[in-house]
Amino acid sequence: MSAAPALHISSAFDAGNIEVVDATDPAAVRLRIRDDAGGEHRQWFHFRVSGLRGQRVVLHIENAEQCSYPGGWFDYRACASSDRQHWRRVETAYEKGALIITLDGATTATTDTLWLAYFAPYSHERHLDLVARCQQSPLARVSVLGPTVDGRDLECVHVGETGPVLWIIARQHPGESMAEWWMEGFLGRLLDPADALGRALRSQARLHIVPSMNPDGAVRGHLRCNAAGANLNREWHAPTAARSPEVKWVRDAMDATGVDLCLDVHGDEALPHNFIAGAEGIPGWSPRLAALQERFLAAYVDACPDFQTAQGYPVDAPGAADMSMCTNQVAQRFDCLAMTLEMPFKDNADAPDPVEGWSPARCQGLGRAALFPLVQVLASLR
Amino acid sequence: MSAAPALHISSAFDAGNIEVVDATDPAAVRLRIRDDAGGEHRQWFHFRVSGLRGQRVVLHIENAEQCSYPGGWFDYRACASSDRQHWRRVETAYEKGALIITLDGATTATTDTLWLAYFAPYSHERHLDLVARCQQSPLARVSVLGPTVDGRDLECVHVGETGPVLWIIARQHPGESMAEWWMEGFLGRLLDPADALGRALRSQARLHIVPSMNPDGAVRGHLRCNAAGANLNREWHAPTAARSPEVKWVRDAMDATGVDLCLDVHGDEALPHNFIAGAEGIPGWSPRLAALQERFLAAYVDACPDFQTAQGYPVDAPGAADMSMCTNQVAQRFDCLAMTLEMPFKDNADAPDPVEGWSPARCQGLGRAALFPLVQVLASLR
Amino acid sequence: MSAAPALHISSAFDAGNIEVVDATDPAAVRLRIRDDAGGEHRQWFHFRVSGLRGQRVVLHIENAEQCSYPGGWFDYRACASSDRQHWRRVETAYEKGALIITLDGATTATTDTLWLAYFAPYSHERHLDLVARCQQSPLARVSVLGPTVDGRDLECVHVGETGPVLWIIARQHPGESMAEWWMEGFLGRLLDPADALGRALRSQARLHIVPSMNPDGAVRGHLRCNAAGANLNREWHAPTAARSPEVKWVRDAMDATGVDLCLDVHGDEALPHNFIAGAEGIPGWSPRLAALQERFLAAYVDACPDFQTAQGYPVDAPGAADMSMCTNQVAQRFDCLAMTLEMPFKDNADAPDPVEGWSPARCQGLGRAALFPLVQVLASLR
Amino acid sequence: MSAAPALHISSAFDAGNIEVVDATDPAAVRLRIRDDAGGEHRQWFHFRVSGLRGQRVVLHIENAEQCSYPGGWFDYRACASSDRQHWRRVETAYEKGALIITLDGATTATTDTLWLAYFAPYSHERHLDLVARCQQSPLARVSVLGPTVDGRDLECVHVGETGPVLWIIARQHPGESMAEWWMEGFLGRLLDPADALGRALRSQARLHIVPSMNPDGAVRGHLRCNAAGANLNREWHAPTAARSPEVKWVRDAMDATGVDLCLDVHGDEALPHNFIAGAEGIPGWSPRLAALQERFLAAYVDACPDFQTAQGYPVDAPGAADMSMCTNQVAQRFDCLAMTLEMPFKDNADAPDPVEGWSPARCQGLGRAALFPLVQVLASLR
Repeated sequence: MSAAPALHISSAFDAGNIEVVDATDPAAVRLRIRDDAGGEHRQWFHFRVSGLRGQRVVLHIENAEQCSYPGGWFDYRACASSDRQHWRRVETAYEKGALIITLDGATTATTDTLWLAYFAPYSHERHLDLVARCQQSPLARVSVLGPTVDGRDLECVHVGETGPVLWIIARQHPGESMAEWWMEGFLGRLLDPADALGRALRSQARLHIVPSMNPDGAVRGHLRCNAAGANLNREWHAPTAARSPEVKWVRDAMDATGVDLCLDVHGDEALPHNFIAGAEGIPGWSPRLAALQERFLAAYVDACPDFQTAQGYPVDAPGAADMSMCTNQVAQRFDCLAMTLEMPFKDNADAPDPVEGWSPARCQGLGRAALFPLVQVLASLR
Repeated sequence: MSAAPALHISSAFDAGNIEVVDATDPAAVRLRIRDDAGGEHRQWFHFRVSGLRGQRVVLHIENAEQCSYPGGWFDYRACASSDRQHWRRVETAYEKGALIITLDGATTATTDTLWLAYFAPYSHERHLDLVARCQQSPLARVSVLGPTVDGRDLECVHVGETGPVLWIIARQHPGESMAEWWMEGFLGRLLDPADALGRALRSQARLHIVPSMNPDGAVRGHLRCNAAGANLNREWHAPTAARSPEVKWVRDAMDATGVDLCLDVHGDEALPHNFIAGAEGIPGWSPRLAALQERFLAAYVDACPDFQTAQGYPVDAPGAADMSMCTNQVAQRFDCLAMTLEMPFKDNADAPDPVEGWSPARCQGLGRAALFPLVQVLASLR
Repeated sequence: MSAAPALHISSAFDAGNIEVVDATDPAAVRLRIRDDAGGEHRQWFHFRVSGLRGQRVVLHIENAEQCSYPGGWFDYRACASSDRQHWRRVETAYEKGALIITLDGATTATTDTLWLAYFAPYSHERHLDLVARCQQSPLARVSVLGPTVDGRDLECVHVGETGPVLWIIARQHPGESMAEWWMEGFLGRLLDPADALGRALRSQARLHIVPSMNPDGAVRGHLRCNAAGANLNREWHAPTAARSPEVKWVRDAMDATGVDLCLDVHGDEALPHNFIAGAEGIPGWSPRLAALQERFLAAYVDACPDFQTAQGYPVDAPGAADMSMCTNQVAQRFDCLAMTLEMPFKDNADAPDPVEGWSPARCQGLGRAALFPLVQVLASLR
Repeated sequence: MSAAPALHISSAFDAGNIEVVDATDPAAVRLRIRDDAGGEHRQWFHFRVSGLRGQRVVLHIENAEQCSYPGGWFDYRACASSDRQHWRRVETAYEKGALIITLDGATTATTDTLWLAYFAPYSHERHLDLVARCQQSPLARVSVLGPTVDGRDLECVHVGETGPVLWIIARQHPGESMAEWWMEGFLGRLLDPADALGRALRSQARLHIVPSMNPDGAVRGHLRCNAAGANLNREWHAPTAARSPEVKWVRDAMDATGVDLCLDVHGDEALPHNFIAGAEGIPGWSPRLAALQERFLAAYVDACPDFQTAQGYPVDAPGAADMSMCTNQVAQRFDCLAMTLEMPFKDNADAPDPVEGWSPARCQGLGRAALFPLVQVLASLR
């Protein structure tokens, strides 16, 4: 063993995604992000690097510019963990079209192995644990809406027996793992028997909650698409069992229950903020919906200062809504308040955390806080 | 071992309080509650019963009517635990001046020993753990304001460096252990680095927090008094180092910092509700204070439906305030919003829990929720 | 919703294995176990049943008789869990070639969903957590020996810097999940800085430990084979990078380090005992090896009465050893003590547990106990 | 606040013991250890220092030379904790009759408060939790043997229904807190339903276990004596209800059950080793007892290399035994194997740990390991 072996990089596990072009030089490891099924999208990465041995290691993701949202790389710092439990940010630059992650000597001094990811992963095993907790709660019931493309179950958690119908769904885009961290916080509080807001919501509303809309894409390490290569949030106008069954089962179930409020939880690659995108561009947008949304937003800001309303997407012009998206389709279809919640891959610029950036714990906190605006608008929904 | 040995009852531990008059007949065990130091008060109890052996055991606390608040026994159910972690309510009646606790065969079938208490105890060891967590947080500093009568430290947790001065104190009356459970929830959230409301409060206010005003009384198993027999919440007009040092050290520190808001956390023996008692009877009561209080109350109701404003103490007539009480003394002394928070020993009648009644977990939830009304009134305090 | 929906059964997750023939009648659900890759083996099952709704549910695995070890079904009871953490045994019969699992009303009264498995599963995520703990320990180093057929890493944990060379490997047969539960106990104790036997072993031996020899088969829900359809424990005479890379990398590494003792951890379908199978049939079997083995066995019995020597496989006749098996190949190749440890899928008949049977906790205990016989033979190994 | 306030030192809590002579100069804080009741003994200390503020703090325990075992201070390092959970050793010297503990800048840089103790404390609350776990186990029964001088319960845990009678008692000397850490390990394994040695011992012996012989002294912060000033391990020849009820209740119970083996768990101030002191000096010492003891010692060494037999007390000359000590009295009284187990306050010199020294985790490990020698001698006891 005279020569130190090269670094070893692997991604053959849940949500793994990386291709190794050349790992012989620790100072310039060459990597590429694999395409989602369908070939249209790519940006999620998740891999393990072994053999760090205290040296400075520089990882170049060479096709960063060819990713779905190159704007997401500006001011972005990659997530790293040595124990798969705690994730912090490491030095990252975006130069000449490549994302360059530097593991300095201080970082590698205490660990020979690091896990790196676009955001802290949320594995399918953890998803199944989350669902099992819901199944065990006397306050919830879990059903399977139907099979995904790869044959997984699309589970739905049902809570409450009377009042307005709320649908909360998350992670249509599987690489937006923050959405399921949010769900863990939301469901944990909703089903906490001792929580007073949870009790209020459970007793005054009927909730249907899909913790993960796209488990196939999540396991496969996709950014946006399911196993058939469909971007699920562009399928709501005409979902099919072949291409977008995950959307079809949910939309069918919505048709059966009706919808008074829909919240669709996402992550955004570019904006360093938590914000809501509404359905202002649908034909049926109305002062009633605008007032409801305004009330929801104000209450969410109050409950959780990590959420804000100053920054966000441009508002759709009247009638310009893309009806293939969940929020627009559901708002129009049910004449109800429907919103897309976006969280950052980057840090929250309004309240930065230099060590962890936007993190699983903060996603959970934002999820727990969501009970407050939901309760605030409940009486006005129908 | 032909004859089954009698039950064994002990209370020689932290917060223990009971006297055994006669425990030979399991169907009619005769007990009495010991006086607090000073002899004026008694109502807290906490003891361990061993030798249950699956039989029906009936405990009579014979001096219940001579306790400080006999009205507290109506609709009250005693707290019981077999593991010292989880507490539930057991069958309790108040008849002919005695509190009668019945441990039926189902209860004693699975455990030979039960711990019983007026409310789930919060031990001094747990208190020291709570203080140690604060001491370890980079977000807080702990100081010792001075010694108690028995020579314990009166600790104060300091958080935040700018903005209005908030004093939050708990457990002047040591038997009101729910006040320190509340503190555990409040401090836990306040010092959670990932919590957005915690961050907001930490960055916009200066908080001085006394998790336990009366550790001597707590360890001794008192209801209301300190080791010198003083009811601390009747000492704020003229505390002395000899009789009420705990109040003197805090009031002196308040004089040094000034006070913009004071919250004093208690439990109430009689009312099955969470509510606030204000300082309406002080000479200096003003529309400004009334408006601040109204805003605080409304926000607390929103944040936690376990809190309410419909039920509570009669409001003091103008000028009729007892200036020996913390809330009145502080409100007047500093022309600030000062309030007493009361939680029930009984269940919360607005949202009953037949198994646990009002519980440590719900106290913690009410404590966590308190960050919301504090943040809501912050900008208006000065 | 007039008619109760049928049961829902899924296995699209880590180690999942079942085919649903017909699930319309809860009293006679028809199931089959899928083949391992290669088509030669089948017996592992792992699936989730939802929609139990308090009814009596009877599951028929119809191809039980066509499984690899039909003798394994006698006196076997299936493992069930509602929370994926705690597994207990449920009523199981083997009749007319089918394995019949009955979930009675008491079982389904408290849960709508159950997870069922041949033995408590050990997921790849849990495997990665186990490896991460080793990677973080200052007492160990982890290397990657090479890629599996499906491209996973074959990790090896290295502990100790001087003394005899011990190789401990587990789970060549992926359905024998008890082998990795054993590893979790063994590694946990070996790397516990406060454990005196762990310290002794670390300081007196060089250990190379492969916690999971067959991660591909484990994820795929196989009983015995890897992703190429190879039974790894029949490949040790001539492993190839194409068909049995997992064995090739380990045997190559053994050739580099030499071997003084090898322990290969398995589960046995048929025998309700923990026992060792030795290398008595190899050409090079010797009194030295026999004495070492005898000493190891006696010490293991002493350390853990769950282990025994009265029951086990018939001992190979001299020269009759199958040299394709790890134990025989390694014993002969290195003239060293090599043994196969077998644990039951059934209960331990010598110390039965009617609720859990042989269980993860007992596997871990047997793994922790293994430090004792290893230390006992250490000085005699070379 | 121009001048930095002096350090603050307190000990008014469970097992607290220190007197502050003068704490004004952080570079030379003057302290004294309080006497046990009775005035004969002193050596245990336990206190909290606040206000460290990153400075170098030097604590002088001025009456170290007047303590019971000045020899204990050589090569001793004090235990410190910032979280009351994890204890490590800090720089300590014994010079000119004073014990000098130095908290350097590195130590005080990250914490403003430290807890210091002679050994990691084991509080009465933790004791009650330990007893509660035993009470909840279906494998044990807890009885109260009688009241201590201060009125606490002297609890005894009973396990097993047939076979030789084993008595295991700990912490006659309350400052030897390692004895109850040992008990936590021993009882945890004995009552672990999945542990095979635990099962063996439970099924083949009748155990009577007193986790803490001297709770009064423990709470009071004594080294050796109970609340009446009695050194309990000098009372076994003639215990009285007034002066040494703790011994009387246990000896009476032993007379009722008979004794086949007795293990009395202690700590030793001077020797940096784990060892056994036997009853060789009793009139009835016999080859049978010598052989039993030899077997026990050899097995304990095998099970736990932290235990050894090379170092220990000088063996009593025949007939020279002090019959007031438990081991001698019990060995003679019941003609049985009786032994005193000693653990160090210092480090274990045979396997030093520069960070923690001899620690709670290692005490627990030694306790868990004790099941092995007990099982080994079981068949030979009667």
